Amino acid sequence: MNNKVTIFENVTVITMNKDKDIIENGVVAFQGNKIIYVGNSDCKESLFKENKYEIEVIDGEDGILMPGMINCHTHASMVPFRSLADDCKDRLKRYLFPLEQRLVNEKLTYIGAKYAVAEMLLGGVTTFCDMYYFEDEVAKATKELNMRGILCETIVNFPSPDSKEAFGGLNYSVDFIEKWRNDALITPGIAPHAPYTNTDESLKEAYNISKKYNVPITMHVAEMDYELKEYVEKYNLTPVEYLNKLGVLDSNFIAAHTILVNDDDIKILKENGVGVSHNIGANAKGAKGVAPIIKMKKEGINVGLGTDGPMSGNTLDILTQMSQVGKVHKLFNNDRTLLPSIELVEMGTIGGAKVLGIDKEIGSIEVGKKADLTLIETKSVNMQPIYDYYAAIVYSANAGNVDLVVVDGKVVVKNKKLLSGNFLEIRKSLLNLQDKINKVAREL
Amino acid sequence: MNNKVTIFENVTVITMNKDKDIIENGVVAFQGNKIIYVGNSDCKESLFKENKYEIEVIDGEDGILMPGMINCHTHASMVPFRSLADDCKDRLKRYLFPLEQRLVNEKLTYIGAKYAVAEMLLGGVTTFCDMYYFEDEVAKATKELNMRGILCETIVNFPSPDSKEAFGGLNYSVDFIEKWRNDALITPGIAPHAPYTNTDESLKEAYNISKKYNVPITMHVAEMDYELKEYVEKYNLTPVEYLNKLGVLDSNFIAAHTILVNDDDIKILKENGVGVSHNIGANAKGAKGVAPIIKMKKEGINVGLGTDGPMSGNTLDILTQMSQVGKVHKLFNNDRTLLPSIELVEMGTIGGAKVLGIDKEIGSIEVGKKADLTLIETKSVNMQPIYDYYAAIVYSANAGNVDLVVVDGKVVVKNKKLLSGNFLEIRKSLLNLQDKINKVAREL
Ligand SMILES: [Zn+2]
Ligand SMILES: [Zn+2]
Repeated sequence: MNNKVTIFENVTVITMNKDKDIIENGVVAFQGNKIIYVGNSDCKESLFKENKYEIEVIDGEDGILMPGMINCHTHASMVPFRSLADDCKDRLKRYLFPLEQRLVNEKLTYIGAKYAVAEMLLGGVTTFCDMYYFEDEVAKATKELNMRGILCETIVNFPSPDSKEAFGGLNYSVDFIEKWRNDALITPGIAPHAPYTNTDESLKEAYNISKKYNVPITMHVAEMDYELKEYVEKYNLTPVEYLNKLGVLDSNFIAAHTILVNDDDIKILKENGVGVSHNIGANAKGAKGVAPIIKMKKEGINVGLGTDGPMSGNTLDILTQMSQVGKVHKLFNNDRTLLPSIELVEMGTIGGAKVLGIDKEIGSIEVGKKADLTLIETKSVNMQPIYDYYAAIVYSANAGNVDLVVVDGKVVVKNKKLLSGNFLEIRKSLLNLQDKINKVAREL
Repeated sequence: MNNKVTIFENVTVITMNKDKDIIENGVVAFQGNKIIYVGNSDCKESLFKENKYEIEVIDGEDGILMPGMINCHTHASMVPFRSLADDCKDRLKRYLFPLEQRLVNEKLTYIGAKYAVAEMLLGGVTTFCDMYYFEDEVAKATKELNMRGILCETIVNFPSPDSKEAFGGLNYSVDFIEKWRNDALITPGIAPHAPYTNTDESLKEAYNISKKYNVPITMHVAEMDYELKEYVEKYNLTPVEYLNKLGVLDSNFIAAHTILVNDDDIKILKENGVGVSHNIGANAKGAKGVAPIIKMKKEGINVGLGTDGPMSGNTLDILTQMSQVGKVHKLFNNDRTLLPSIELVEMGTIGGAKVLGIDKEIGSIEVGKKADLTLIETKSVNMQPIYDYYAAIVYSANAGNVDLVVVDGKVVVKNKKLLSGNFLEIRKSLLNLQDKINKVAREL
């Protein structure tokens, strides 16, 4: 094993372990991709005095070291479309699907994913769960920048950018899963877009693929008012009841949005071990409603946070989501004590890891876990004073305060700059797409 | 007159003038504290070829130049308490008032204000409306850092940090107004804290002072559920009806919050020319409700944005508010087309200027107006691509993207650094207060 050890000093460690330990003036060390020490500075010297390690010390300069954040639902490659048609009615069908049909190809998917991955890393997100087309391109981009991805190929009942036939994603996903299933950073999966854009057969086949390979399956569930209406009118079932009857819900299932769910739906989700990605920024901006996550959490459902695609939620960082989740739920429930900051940080870290089924590997700063770490600097004007570290993370910090990021033991962001790729080139590739997108958008 | 002219080049100018002109590859020039040219680059040379000016050129590097943003309601000096007791019930009476009684003095007020002013400038805010004690200290801090302030001394029915007697702010404010009324940057005013913390007499006297000197009067109005209950039970009047009956509402009146208002209240506000500061971040976090600003705007009431104090809203920038206002109102009204980005930018700039009664002077980039300008850089990962400048400001930008700020013709922030003061010293003074605050807070 690699004898190089990297040690963080001068940090406050927000462990997010079971006891939610906070270590002021803490020390965290990792070797290879694993955390090997979490404690306070007093213990450090005795541990490393044997001098058998090659030691690199990172001075955290009084920053907050927290687990890398987890984005449980996005469509990374849509970042080339950000800020298009933001306030437009019925946008998904009028704008977004046609735009994708005409513009999305392998190249755009790759360029978009690479830019989005850079943005997530720079915002302190170390793992994301993606639903899109050409997921092989997303995987390449993610791997190149050394990010962790749960990448799920989309299945829809119409021809898609990567398939002339409807449901082409089913075949694509088998190849994709076979190719990436043993990768250290990429976990391939499958993503039926939504119940209403699939058939019983396609949903069952997607489920079977997920089952066969034991990989994640993710889907937009109970997001749209017309979706709920259709299932109640046609089958007298809610979308969740429908999926349950079909037998496709299990602990590999990651339900995105789940806004229009009732108490029975919540029980069904719980009984099947389904995890939920709560995407409040996009849900609010899209006027879609507020998922009842307080009830879900009470029932014991794992709830993580997601940004949704950058055409819906615009930014891809999880810090912004934490603050919005807190505010919206306090407001809707008329109770300022709801969702204290610690629970919001939990949803953005270990909670998200549970949703994605990888909480044994990531989501907290504990010995034996993967070194996925985010350092928030506390020098900027918005970060002081700090009486409560969780509140400072949730209500003071923004993505611009992320100073250093480690994924799988590799420093990918340092001094707020991307180290794992050439950001200027990534940016240039993105901007080169803009003229063509503008032209097509104007025709819609 | 000063023959020095400063010229912004390579910027997209978001003018927020009547026609909402956007000038790509624009040029803005100011001389002394006034804007003397707004146009495109072609026109520049002919204007300045006479060579009678000493010209300084600022390369905006493809940034977005917008009017300096306006924070219509805050308590700047409360920044030393930020992140204390964030999720605590009935916090105003249980925590905040006692904390202030025991800790707020001239020194804390000055240090807090100076830090908060630095934070606002660094976040692109060039004007703020403040309600606090020792406003003379706030004025000093504001002036020193060259920010524009509408600074209003608080009137309450109990002994306050700056007065052993109840209502001591009435005398304080007369002296304060006399002292600062002719200042170029500071507009003094008066601030009865709320109807329920005042009497008929104190409200009338505050109103008379405002009337006599023709200065702003600001008040928390219809913010609290217990406030509404009290006025309805005691007088069978809403707080707004009560204030109207008392005769204290006029066009100098800036109503903060105005959450619990009905259609009749809105008519009263409109008839009296009252402006409203909408403080959604703080209102959401405090679970207080959503002010009906869509209706207010339809009635023609001027609505601006406020952060409220940093113990309630945590951050002091207006960019964050814009995004939250859009999202919350779309969500509450179940309509994603409501409050398009242009209206959110309007509320954060010229709309706020109208609320504060200074829209002839500031709030838009137009020849003859004061040079209060904010440059948002577009190089950071979260800022691209841009198809809609308003959407980019509202949904992509955060305070960390503010690159350069001009107030009254003076560059106060450049390359994201404070120029008008020594930030490290300001920060140190703030952190020196922390131990004592911590000690007192633990006793509450
Ligand atoms: Zn989605
Ligand atoms: Zn207030």
